[in-house]
Amino acid sequence: MSSSFGQLFKISTWGESHGVGVGVVIDGCPPMLELSEEEIQKELDRRRPGQSEIVTPRKEGDVCEILSGVFEGKTLGSPIGILVRNQDQRPSSYTEMKDKYRPSHADYTYDAKYGIRAWHGGGRASARETIGRVAAAAVAKKVIDSLFPGIEILAWVQSIQDIEADVDPRTITSEEIESNIVRTGDPRVVDTMIERIKEVRSDGNSIGGTVQCVIRNCPAGLGAPVFDKLDAELAKAMLSIPATKGFELGSGFAGTLLTGREHNDHFYMDDDNVRTRTNRSGGVQGGISNGENIEFRVAFKPTATIMSEQPTVSTDKEDTTLKGRGRHDACVLPRAVPMVEAMATLVLCDHLLRQRAQCGL
Amino acid sequence: MSSSFGQLFKISTWGESHGVGVGVVIDGCPPMLELSEEEIQKELDRRRPGQSEIVTPRKEGDVCEILSGVFEGKTLGSPIGILVRNQDQRPSSYTEMKDKYRPSHADYTYDAKYGIRAWHGGGRASARETIGRVAAAAVAKKVIDSLFPGIEILAWVQSIQDIEADVDPRTITSEEIESNIVRTGDPRVVDTMIERIKEVRSDGNSIGGTVQCVIRNCPAGLGAPVFDKLDAELAKAMLSIPATKGFELGSGFAGTLLTGREHNDHFYMDDDNVRTRTNRSGGVQGGISNGENIEFRVAFKPTATIMSEQPTVSTDKEDTTLKGRGRHDACVLPRAVPMVEAMATLVLCDHLLRQRAQCGL
Amino acid sequence: MSSSFGQLFKISTWGESHGVGVGVVIDGCPPMLELSEEEIQKELDRRRPGQSEIVTPRKEGDVCEILSGVFEGKTLGSPIGILVRNQDQRPSSYTEMKDKYRPSHADYTYDAKYGIRAWHGGGRASARETIGRVAAAAVAKKVIDSLFPGIEILAWVQSIQDIEADVDPRTITSEEIESNIVRTGDPRVVDTMIERIKEVRSDGNSIGGTVQCVIRNCPAGLGAPVFDKLDAELAKAMLSIPATKGFELGSGFAGTLLTGREHNDHFYMDDDNVRTRTNRSGGVQGGISNGENIEFRVAFKPTATIMSEQPTVSTDKEDTTLKGRGRHDACVLPRAVPMVEAMATLVLCDHLLRQRAQCGL
Amino acid sequence: MSSSFGQLFKISTWGESHGVGVGVVIDGCPPMLELSEEEIQKELDRRRPGQSEIVTPRKEGDVCEILSGVFEGKTLGSPIGILVRNQDQRPSSYTEMKDKYRPSHADYTYDAKYGIRAWHGGGRASARETIGRVAAAAVAKKVIDSLFPGIEILAWVQSIQDIEADVDPRTITSEEIESNIVRTGDPRVVDTMIERIKEVRSDGNSIGGTVQCVIRNCPAGLGAPVFDKLDAELAKAMLSIPATKGFELGSGFAGTLLTGREHNDHFYMDDDNVRTRTNRSGGVQGGISNGENIEFRVAFKPTATIMSEQPTVSTDKEDTTLKGRGRHDACVLPRAVPMVEAMATLVLCDHLLRQRAQCGL
Repeated sequence: MSSSFGQLFKISTWGESHGVGVGVVIDGCPPMLELSEEEIQKELDRRRPGQSEIVTPRKEGDVCEILSGVFEGKTLGSPIGILVRNQDQRPSSYTEMKDKYRPSHADYTYDAKYGIRAWHGGGRASARETIGRVAAAAVAKKVIDSLFPGIEILAWVQSIQDIEADVDPRTITSEEIESNIVRTGDPRVVDTMIERIKEVRSDGNSIGGTVQCVIRNCPAGLGAPVFDKLDAELAKAMLSIPATKGFELGSGFAGTLLTGREHNDHFYMDDDNVRTRTNRSGGVQGGISNGENIEFRVAFKPTATIMSEQPTVSTDKEDTTLKGRGRHDACVLPRAVPMVEAMATLVLCDHLLRQRAQCGL
Repeated sequence: MSSSFGQLFKISTWGESHGVGVGVVIDGCPPMLELSEEEIQKELDRRRPGQSEIVTPRKEGDVCEILSGVFEGKTLGSPIGILVRNQDQRPSSYTEMKDKYRPSHADYTYDAKYGIRAWHGGGRASARETIGRVAAAAVAKKVIDSLFPGIEILAWVQSIQDIEADVDPRTITSEEIESNIVRTGDPRVVDTMIERIKEVRSDGNSIGGTVQCVIRNCPAGLGAPVFDKLDAELAKAMLSIPATKGFELGSGFAGTLLTGREHNDHFYMDDDNVRTRTNRSGGVQGGISNGENIEFRVAFKPTATIMSEQPTVSTDKEDTTLKGRGRHDACVLPRAVPMVEAMATLVLCDHLLRQRAQCGL
Repeated sequence: MSSSFGQLFKISTWGESHGVGVGVVIDGCPPMLELSEEEIQKELDRRRPGQSEIVTPRKEGDVCEILSGVFEGKTLGSPIGILVRNQDQRPSSYTEMKDKYRPSHADYTYDAKYGIRAWHGGGRASARETIGRVAAAAVAKKVIDSLFPGIEILAWVQSIQDIEADVDPRTITSEEIESNIVRTGDPRVVDTMIERIKEVRSDGNSIGGTVQCVIRNCPAGLGAPVFDKLDAELAKAMLSIPATKGFELGSGFAGTLLTGREHNDHFYMDDDNVRTRTNRSGGVQGGISNGENIEFRVAFKPTATIMSEQPTVSTDKEDTTLKGRGRHDACVLPRAVPMVEAMATLVLCDHLLRQRAQCGL
Repeated sequence: MSSSFGQLFKISTWGESHGVGVGVVIDGCPPMLELSEEEIQKELDRRRPGQSEIVTPRKEGDVCEILSGVFEGKTLGSPIGILVRNQDQRPSSYTEMKDKYRPSHADYTYDAKYGIRAWHGGGRASARETIGRVAAAAVAKKVIDSLFPGIEILAWVQSIQDIEADVDPRTITSEEIESNIVRTGDPRVVDTMIERIKEVRSDGNSIGGTVQCVIRNCPAGLGAPVFDKLDAELAKAMLSIPATKGFELGSGFAGTLLTGREHNDHFYMDDDNVRTRTNRSGGVQGGISNGENIEFRVAFKPTATIMSEQPTVSTDKEDTTLKGRGRHDACVLPRAVPMVEAMATLVLCDHLLRQRAQCGL
């Protein structure tokens, strides 16, 4: 169904941005893993609003409560329910949205599909929905660590508009990324990026960019042939994050300019390990990991909500105009980083369990 | 499972490139649709080898046989089994592959995953597997036509290496695309593209490019929130095609350079229809179609098989070299076009049925 | 996954009996249906403890809270989250269960499977889990009523031990069933049944029985061939209810004593309707409803918890004895009735949506 | 979907009784298992028509062909396609069925559902469909043997009409069952059963009975809480076999007559093993195996096809009569035995893989 993800580590998120709350149910989690609300909260804090001066000033504590599936600090193997109640709701900010469709938002399409929508603040289409994903990924991370210790999943802001970071995916660390509020991996562009975001925000405008992600120490053999290729599942996972417009792995679109002779990754023996000299494959061949770093990029469009008057139509099908209100991110990239990591973590966790099921680990 | 695709129009492909044959089982097809082997064969002929001078000269008739699910020319509602027997097998071309991993192929990863692989010609990782998808999509097309007549799904070669076509997605026709063996939509670049492919092939090398696809007359309201967003499902569908490295919808990666003020698609009333002035959203907002053309691009890497000696390793983990043999496409793009159309058709058909299930049509 | 049920009307329950609470997420519910907490509460009240003198005296209000998916009194089409917090917990009643396995309970098997269990009161294996099912079924009932008004799903206690009710499935009403605390459909056996339950309870013992269910006015054509036969799905649904040991439809086990000549249901025309003279098929032929009443019976074993000292083993694998404590039903049948109805409702709702998806309604 | 079964060892059957053939695709099979067509054929021969004097005299070799997924005698991990072409077709036997609905068959319900049916010989509703299940189960058996050697799954005819066998599930052997053409486990009733079947057949009539099944040496911990309980999945599996009307596990319906004190299975230590003194639970507690023998019974109604004139209706909705033709089993029980074993094997194999996925084996 549309709100579930994963075959064996299966998450089902629920909740609208201005309803009672948002949350997730995780089914299929292995038992006997230590798990606390603190570990989940730590990841939620990375995505929550109000965390720095360049993100939305909305004040949501996003405090999680584990409802089930954990007993005396350990997972039971039964469904883990997690609830985050909504707090800082100012529905009045959204009154105009009741009758008008915000451009490049999901207001119109939800109405077209369902004939009804929770018009306060985006409802189900709000990025608040990703709380459930980030919470579930905090659990998935524990599963991965227990089954195959050493796998690292790191994402960072690779570009804000035309400002491009220069980052080595082989060596970048979580500390470097978290050391700056943009969550880029290149200290030289941090100030420029922050300045650009502030500039654009003070103009009532918005910008986008790209997030890059690397999965290091992933064993060879994860993923699956045909439809559930590891890169295909990552592509779906990333395009399911709000505001994304593209995905590329390894050489990506630039790779279409090379010849096969330039593009092929030659194998060689590194002691007892099969390695490739280059990694244009992005760590995945035939849909299955080859043991090299898995590297991909995700495109995020500029935030749809801007503080200018824009032409649009009303729900009763008249031309009109609408000016953005409410408290929004002028640039979602810093908060998108934990979302990209979360989705990558969920994909990897699911495929580790799938691999254990079919082939053993 | 890894060889199944779709929730309601569910296909399961099977078969290795040099085994008995390849095929597909379709479960969930609506009953009472007229269906003949000829209609399926027509689509298979667009993807088969040997169809023109710029694709692999392998001679495979790829003749399909409907095994079940059709009675007196009409679908029964029960599973439709389709079989294509393999014919032009020259396993001797592949002997060396038994002991050596071809660079940038799936040989090594299959071994890493399963401990075994059908080493003749790629086995399950061969593009022959897509026969089942193309056959299933021929059926899906009939479903779409019966539920929502007028939807058009057209793909074409947008670029071969740096040679870019100039095509208007709003007006391009199937006839224009099929009028040339490259399957590009721009007559001005056909000769250059053909020349480039021949050049590269005679050099024993290979090249890639991009395929663009447009879905026209798609009703608003298809797709789903959260994980099964229409664009997310298209992304997965496309990345599941062999040799793909990227996917972008609407403004895609280029859209990350714009501001929100430049990027937003303004709504307006066109008679009784809600339309957008621009289409940077690519026809999908919040994961749901908005009635505009759905437009996306897919990156295909240069074919991995090249006729040069390349460094690699053997299955017993020694450094060695390998030179490509066999009959291969120097450029997969012309044959990738029907694959992209097929996967888009399958996604759309599935979401039409899902929409009918939840909301009615 | 093990805690999800349904393909299109998909429910995922979560929660342990003595944790924070229990609940359910419903994905795939059609939009625009009026839905209130009162409607759900009404069904929950039929299954809650403490409702009469013959069920467990535990005092749980079982008050439900809709967390998502409903906006201004109507379903949104997005996941409906429902939460019931646990209240009347007396974990001290269960201390001994920490170290000893209760006979014929799930304590030992959960430990064997997961290496851990929530030993307070049965945890996930508690009948409290069915709260989520009953709540979801209250929603499913609204879906059924909107798609195919007039379908009636009624269950009643058919037997308590050897006391058998005489009920006509064609005419029995909800009022007759709810008019007595046993929820049997035959007024002549009500007192005997109540007396038997009280007798057994005062002896610290327990008893079982059967629940019968009829689905009236079900259209012909629901269900599916092969694995998801309507009767097969009902069988799974019923056997998933705690304490069930058997399922039979139509003639059931007794039908094995007849010859084909005696057993076959002859078709005849009743005005424009195809009907059968007899209904040994139980309303389902080849896994698909034939328009006759769907009739089945479910066997419930005597409650495992009894107030006598019984031999058992400890978690550290020593022979020992255990005497039941806590407040339990000496006979689950009266409270099993709404559970049987709930599961039948979920199966039917799912198949109505599946029918609409594949064939239209 | 309706023609798929299993979550991790997933089979998809296809085919109509008088079409090109029937078959199955198995997805998720572990790699590196030795597998030959002979092993599959051996099981198919146990269910094929014409195998003895008391089953239908139709002559179908039911010869299987492995189409994919096996390479040099070993499973590849990719989908295993298996095809059995139909041979002994006499569509003329069925001409009358085109226009008339056979009583207690699926002719009418298929028409009601799909508006079309393959009227030659039952089409998809024919027991020929079970060929795919039996073939898949032959593969599943190899998976079980590789993951947990020693598990035995044995079914036998427990009763034919009122003739009841006396069989000890703890000691019955495959040899004893296969030693007689009825496939009962009690030599004392073999002749009476054969005589009864012949008698009934010569009268143009038919009879039913029950099949009992035992799973021995099943480890504790298989199955799952809530919806996918091991007994619930077995119930669905069994009710999906044509002509079944009931399922009971352990004490079953008879258990409803006992008190809890009589019914409970007391645990005791048998060396280091937790065992129960009695087995009224039938080897499953809380949906999870407890290490005791899993024991269940399945009710099969008398074959619907009888050689007498019966009242029925025509496809153009007129009252009429119909007399059975064709070659049919007067009693399906002997051929139902391998079907019951097959479905039990599929359930167990799937749950072994599920257990390995979530908890490790």
